[in-house]
Amino acid sequence: MQIALLGFGVVGGGVYAICQDRSDLRVTRVLVRSDKPEIAAIATRSMDDIVNDPAIDTVAEVMGGIHPAKEYVEAALNAGKHVVTANKALIAACGDELTALAKKNGVSLRCTAAVGGGIPWLVNLERIKRLDTVSEVGGIMNGTTNFIMDAMHTSGAAFGDVLAQAQALGYAEADPSADIDGDDIRRKLAISAGVAFDVSVEETAIPTFGIRTVTDGDITAFRQRGFVCKLLATAMRCQDGVCAFVEPTLVRAGEPEAAVGANYNLITYTADRIGRQSFFGQGAGRFPTAGNVVQDCLDILGGKTAFYADISRRTSLAEDAVSHPYYVRTAAPDEFLRSVTVDTWGGGVITSAVGVDTMLRWAKAKLQEDPGCFVAGIR
Amino acid sequence: MQIALLGFGVVGGGVYAICQDRSDLRVTRVLVRSDKPEIAAIATRSMDDIVNDPAIDTVAEVMGGIHPAKEYVEAALNAGKHVVTANKALIAACGDELTALAKKNGVSLRCTAAVGGGIPWLVNLERIKRLDTVSEVGGIMNGTTNFIMDAMHTSGAAFGDVLAQAQALGYAEADPSADIDGDDIRRKLAISAGVAFDVSVEETAIPTFGIRTVTDGDITAFRQRGFVCKLLATAMRCQDGVCAFVEPTLVRAGEPEAAVGANYNLITYTADRIGRQSFFGQGAGRFPTAGNVVQDCLDILGGKTAFYADISRRTSLAEDAVSHPYYVRTAAPDEFLRSVTVDTWGGGVITSAVGVDTMLRWAKAKLQEDPGCFVAGIR
Repeated sequence: MQIALLGFGVVGGGVYAICQDRSDLRVTRVLVRSDKPEIAAIATRSMDDIVNDPAIDTVAEVMGGIHPAKEYVEAALNAGKHVVTANKALIAACGDELTALAKKNGVSLRCTAAVGGGIPWLVNLERIKRLDTVSEVGGIMNGTTNFIMDAMHTSGAAFGDVLAQAQALGYAEADPSADIDGDDIRRKLAISAGVAFDVSVEETAIPTFGIRTVTDGDITAFRQRGFVCKLLATAMRCQDGVCAFVEPTLVRAGEPEAAVGANYNLITYTADRIGRQSFFGQGAGRFPTAGNVVQDCLDILGGKTAFYADISRRTSLAEDAVSHPYYVRTAAPDEFLRSVTVDTWGGGVITSAVGVDTMLRWAKAKLQEDPGCFVAGIR
Repeated sequence: MQIALLGFGVVGGGVYAICQDRSDLRVTRVLVRSDKPEIAAIATRSMDDIVNDPAIDTVAEVMGGIHPAKEYVEAALNAGKHVVTANKALIAACGDELTALAKKNGVSLRCTAAVGGGIPWLVNLERIKRLDTVSEVGGIMNGTTNFIMDAMHTSGAAFGDVLAQAQALGYAEADPSADIDGDDIRRKLAISAGVAFDVSVEETAIPTFGIRTVTDGDITAFRQRGFVCKLLATAMRCQDGVCAFVEPTLVRAGEPEAAVGANYNLITYTADRIGRQSFFGQGAGRFPTAGNVVQDCLDILGGKTAFYADISRRTSLAEDAVSHPYYVRTAAPDEFLRSVTVDTWGGGVITSAVGVDTMLRWAKAKLQEDPGCFVAGIR
């Protein structure tokens, strides 16, 4: 297989290094934006050099972002080349469209690295669907936020200190918003729900609350009561179709999610006959992510032509299909909150079961008035 | 694909039920030992009916035991039929020989259900080997013993009471020896190590200590010190080749293994580039196990011809390649134990780091003198 890499950053460099050791996969072109002396002989700044090279059968897109990645992937598919991508933004936004284009051109489109980094998540989700009906997917799908929550639980430190530590270690970006506000995990949930349920979910339609406002006081209150707080993604079949949400969640100490330390992920499906199966590993990082890109190439080389799912059209999410109690801490309690409060934990209150959409909509609005407001679902 | 089932027990019935729903896999013959009215039209008591039926392309062996399963599998392979088996005893004892026979006959031999029941363990282990070097495999690979250890930790109950409960629930056999003495997990470890390291390991050569002698007093001592006791299997590359062992192991509360409840399994590999990845799910049961048998059939139908590993010949295990501290409780302490004792926990002692082979050999011998002796490695 002759591969053109689009991008030569952390993941691209990892793909290149893995392929250097093998004879079945050869990287023969790399699209770059700046000079890369170590690959000068195969580097190009022109996508045309790749599209017009008939010897290249597969394009591995590891540049990230939607534009121009989308246009490049379309050009590759239209040129009859298979495409492998690690780009979750692209797949969440344009996965249906690109899958249709791949089908039209009789080539493959694979994106296992787009969810869970190096964890063989999407391939196993695809595999279980061959013989069972998936009823729920989700879990810990963002390593940065898990690192932060784990460190806060372990050290008792404040959110800001732990975030700074995560940034120093390279686990969090200089602008950590996409991780801590839940956009990244929401995107991975949208892709996973799409594959699991053969639907197409608009990522921004998934109600989401991040961990930006969690405090060491909240964590102390959770620990004292035997709970661990994690940022969890959940999507499930429900009476009216599919529901999905992302929120800080209190799980009992001793549950599998509670035992996920550092920047690891734990991603789970539940299927009607087989029950629950979970996948644990590094959800990001050079070699884990590059590994899944290379695995996709090997699957294509081995003749795999299937797509993850038969995605057709955008699906609306069911509202308030799931209700559960919440921990809510706000300096501006209101009539709604008082009407559902049943208990007090430290600086926060516990509610009776409230619909997820209702609560997360309330919490988002409350942030305008009380920017420190924090909520967590109780599983 | 036309499938002949050998056996119509719990797993065979599950395979039959799953295939009933589909058009690509059809069970057209079932080898039975007693009348099964619900499948009278396709049941036979003669393996010849299956071997001599040219329409049958795949034989799924779900009868268990080594004889006559081995002879039946050989006959099927020699007749040019693919074989799928869930039989860990057969694969641990004769996997090399049967793989060679399958290769000679140009057919497939798959056994994903033999380790981890419904967990996609061996297929993912096979997959990671395509691009990485596995350095370690193991984990919680026996649901019966995990149920017992989890219940003892949760309820504080005595071993005998919990075992009786497991038997009532159908999680433990009337004769629980194979589970609680570690023979079952040792067998799964032998198969996993063979696949991971391309070696052939004699299952009885793996030093093993079970959970038969653990007491509620031991569990209390572990809990008080923040440990959870699990029966763990471990195999790893070492300087002198491969080492492997099965022993009760104290893991810190908060570690992934500590959070595995009920009869679930958690099976792990560590690979040089990708790091640690773990697989969680039901390690036994009708539909989980049948699911992996059907998955193997689908892989063969999809053209998969690879074998899990290039196993060649029996490999000796390295001795004492791993050393760590132990918890030891015996009514008959001796000079050796005193020479390595560094602390006391409840009714037991803690040792300095001792070679695994040395300690488990000592413990096995000690059981003759003190049948209640218990040891657990400290990770």
